[in-house]
Amino acid sequence: MTIKVGVLGANGRVGSAVCDGVEAADDLELVARIDSSDDLHTLVSSGTQVIVDFTTPDVVMDNLEFCISHGIHCVVGTTGFDADRLATVESWCAAEGAGNLLIAPNFAISAVLAMTFAKQAAKFFDSAEVVEYHHPNKLDAPSGTAVHTAHGIAQARKDAGLGPIPDATTQSLEGARGANVDGVRVHGVRMTGMVAHEDIIFGTQGQTLTIRQDSYDRTSFVPGVLVGVRGIGSHDGLTVGLDGYLEI
Amino acid sequence: MTIKVGVLGANGRVGSAVCDGVEAADDLELVARIDSSDDLHTLVSSGTQVIVDFTTPDVVMDNLEFCISHGIHCVVGTTGFDADRLATVESWCAAEGAGNLLIAPNFAISAVLAMTFAKQAAKFFDSAEVVEYHHPNKLDAPSGTAVHTAHGIAQARKDAGLGPIPDATTQSLEGARGANVDGVRVHGVRMTGMVAHEDIIFGTQGQTLTIRQDSYDRTSFVPGVLVGVRGIGSHDGLTVGLDGYLEI
Amino acid sequence: MTIKVGVLGANGRVGSAVCDGVEAADDLELVARIDSSDDLHTLVSSGTQVIVDFTTPDVVMDNLEFCISHGIHCVVGTTGFDADRLATVESWCAAEGAGNLLIAPNFAISAVLAMTFAKQAAKFFDSAEVVEYHHPNKLDAPSGTAVHTAHGIAQARKDAGLGPIPDATTQSLEGARGANVDGVRVHGVRMTGMVAHEDIIFGTQGQTLTIRQDSYDRTSFVPGVLVGVRGIGSHDGLTVGLDGYLEI
Amino acid sequence: MTIKVGVLGANGRVGSAVCDGVEAADDLELVARIDSSDDLHTLVSSGTQVIVDFTTPDVVMDNLEFCISHGIHCVVGTTGFDADRLATVESWCAAEGAGNLLIAPNFAISAVLAMTFAKQAAKFFDSAEVVEYHHPNKLDAPSGTAVHTAHGIAQARKDAGLGPIPDATTQSLEGARGANVDGVRVHGVRMTGMVAHEDIIFGTQGQTLTIRQDSYDRTSFVPGVLVGVRGIGSHDGLTVGLDGYLEI
Repeated sequence: MTIKVGVLGANGRVGSAVCDGVEAADDLELVARIDSSDDLHTLVSSGTQVIVDFTTPDVVMDNLEFCISHGIHCVVGTTGFDADRLATVESWCAAEGAGNLLIAPNFAISAVLAMTFAKQAAKFFDSAEVVEYHHPNKLDAPSGTAVHTAHGIAQARKDAGLGPIPDATTQSLEGARGANVDGVRVHGVRMTGMVAHEDIIFGTQGQTLTIRQDSYDRTSFVPGVLVGVRGIGSHDGLTVGLDGYLEI
Repeated sequence: MTIKVGVLGANGRVGSAVCDGVEAADDLELVARIDSSDDLHTLVSSGTQVIVDFTTPDVVMDNLEFCISHGIHCVVGTTGFDADRLATVESWCAAEGAGNLLIAPNFAISAVLAMTFAKQAAKFFDSAEVVEYHHPNKLDAPSGTAVHTAHGIAQARKDAGLGPIPDATTQSLEGARGANVDGVRVHGVRMTGMVAHEDIIFGTQGQTLTIRQDSYDRTSFVPGVLVGVRGIGSHDGLTVGLDGYLEI
Repeated sequence: MTIKVGVLGANGRVGSAVCDGVEAADDLELVARIDSSDDLHTLVSSGTQVIVDFTTPDVVMDNLEFCISHGIHCVVGTTGFDADRLATVESWCAAEGAGNLLIAPNFAISAVLAMTFAKQAAKFFDSAEVVEYHHPNKLDAPSGTAVHTAHGIAQARKDAGLGPIPDATTQSLEGARGANVDGVRVHGVRMTGMVAHEDIIFGTQGQTLTIRQDSYDRTSFVPGVLVGVRGIGSHDGLTVGLDGYLEI
Repeated sequence: MTIKVGVLGANGRVGSAVCDGVEAADDLELVARIDSSDDLHTLVSSGTQVIVDFTTPDVVMDNLEFCISHGIHCVVGTTGFDADRLATVESWCAAEGAGNLLIAPNFAISAVLAMTFAKQAAKFFDSAEVVEYHHPNKLDAPSGTAVHTAHGIAQARKDAGLGPIPDATTQSLEGARGANVDGVRVHGVRMTGMVAHEDIIFGTQGQTLTIRQDSYDRTSFVPGVLVGVRGIGSHDGLTVGLDGYLEI
């Protein structure tokens, strides 16, 4: 039994890569490619069970209201979900016969796993730092992912009752020790040729553990979207973040 | 409240490093250093709650029988536990008022975590390989840890219903693609200057996740021993493998 | 003063990337885009000083004969140059007023530098191994670059009078220690998501030196081609291999 | 023919490791172990050809005056050579029949090679950054080696006429982009368990080149000292820095 999938925003660069991914998977069937000019009822007539939405903040709420109310599950990578919007979609999901909903800011499965493992590992190590590497056209440093990772490590250390990370530095050039994110040092490298990479490094007596994530191209979100498509039938209501689907 | 710790084999290189580790920890108190000429009753009179045993296969069973029967928990790195010995110690642990027992072949916490994460990650990736690096005096290739890691990955892939790892190689120099361990390729590098290191690499569309473990010196087992000492009070009976104590 | 550049095979994927690279460089001017249907005399009328040829073995000799005889320098990435062809083009270059010629099998500047540094470093280290990483659709293992690198290391060790690389392995799974290329072990990893990567590792007492090369996409030959274009005016006659232009 | 070697400061931790290294080398013969209480004339009577001096700034000048004037070559790792001292020793070396002199701040051959290669590579890449990793007891950040490396890269870029390294960062947490050393960003990681490590990263279109240096223990200076001992006979007068002996 395959899962029948519809893609919204199917003609965009991202949606188009999702379509390719669905078509390449033996257990999934692409039954609807929807773009802005298409009627959403096509989803119903095609028997779509799960939709993937990579559209825009101005149309995503209408898409979700339609799909959820028709019992179609929704895997959503579109941005712009603030607390108000989350409350609204959660209420839609609570209705009798409603579809389930997964909203994730990051579908790169390797990045999501890296962050999950970092939180699990943190309590066992004296030291932790993050080094992220991106192309030089990136506007912010450190990356949002690296800051999020550092927050997760800091919280795990706090929960485990660990004290400050050891650091005897007394003489330093400004910036040498990176940005201080909740006590975890984060360094951003900007390098022509690179895409998006992250080293999460933990150390204790005589050993280190490094979790390295490399994104080589812009289709790296596809495998995570498919994890969402396959898992959404068994995750009732609203889930925020792909980590809720990893079952590890 | 500190935990009162006794070390058996305290004068050996390994036991001595354990003593240093216990003494450096605020929540632990070293109350007994026992060597071959010392009377085990010192453990009772000193109020020892947990012992750490890095001795030899010919004395470890006597040590454990004494400690377990006196309600002292035992963290054991000594080798030589076959099925018979495991059955024997398990029966000792089942007695009323007996101490708990942790027997682990590997106390390097970063290596144990690496293997645990590898098993969790495996089902999300098309490809997986292991590259281990050791000093050139090592007699076996690949390392036991790398083989064990590959078995864990292979099992996790099988449980998830994944097929063979993709590999289009048709022309190959003998050995170029490494050893085949249950379908997972494992490569052993031997390099002057290195100690013990392992890369566990996973890949899927547009991305890779690498879990890297580095051991820099021969005291890297100490933090894992302390995880055992702190956790053993709440793990009843016999546990084999430090991963059972990680609670992640 | 800019250098006037013509590109042969300009409509191909590779030639098109070369055109983009030339146009983006302040010191170069793209004066001719030539494809199979275009007349080579355009090169003369446009004042072309250097051509870049990424065409095919069946047309490259005619292209070179024309250009060299008209005093136009040639940077060539087209394949298929055996000893006969090299002798022929060398004789063309020897004529009065002839253009210079650079023929290179690999224009990825980082790969060429990695190989050059590997040869320089080899004599200072007891151990050397190569690990290459490619996408799983690659047919050969190890890669030609890795084999070439290993040959260079082996030759440098021999020239320096070094003996065999130390390796105490007595128990080994078949293939675990990689392919033996002139006494240097070479390992090939095949990993979904990766493109083309190489670690050249050297070790001696208490330390290692690793030269790592990463290719992230298929335009990585462009910077090396531009090194060729800029340098060819001062390299008389025929040069084989970009390393002859590095001046390091 | 072996080279007869004397070690000054032979009972110190460093000198003792040098003695071990000399004794392990087939082409070298340890003929004198000198400590503070020993008479330097032992060097003459033993036929010492090259001495290695890891002593202290207060005795090194007397040692060198004696040895150089007796035609014994000197490989020196002792610190404290300012311009005055260098002028003095240079004048000693200029005398008829004087010994040669090598003074080096860093004998870790892998670190010296990394710096040399970095200077050679710099002109071929748009981007360059340095990330160094040390144990958390280090007082300064970045390390002296990393700062020195960055200066070398900056100078090579300037000599080649390269402009600033591209960096579009507009929003940044303080310190995220590292220390600015002559326009090259340098990051210092402090990590329990690590010893001393450095990544020098270069990037251009579609590719990166990383030169990684790892020091695993405190004897990593020995191979570089032996390079000095073997090479000093053919390097007349005073040389500062082991890179002058690499002949690459």
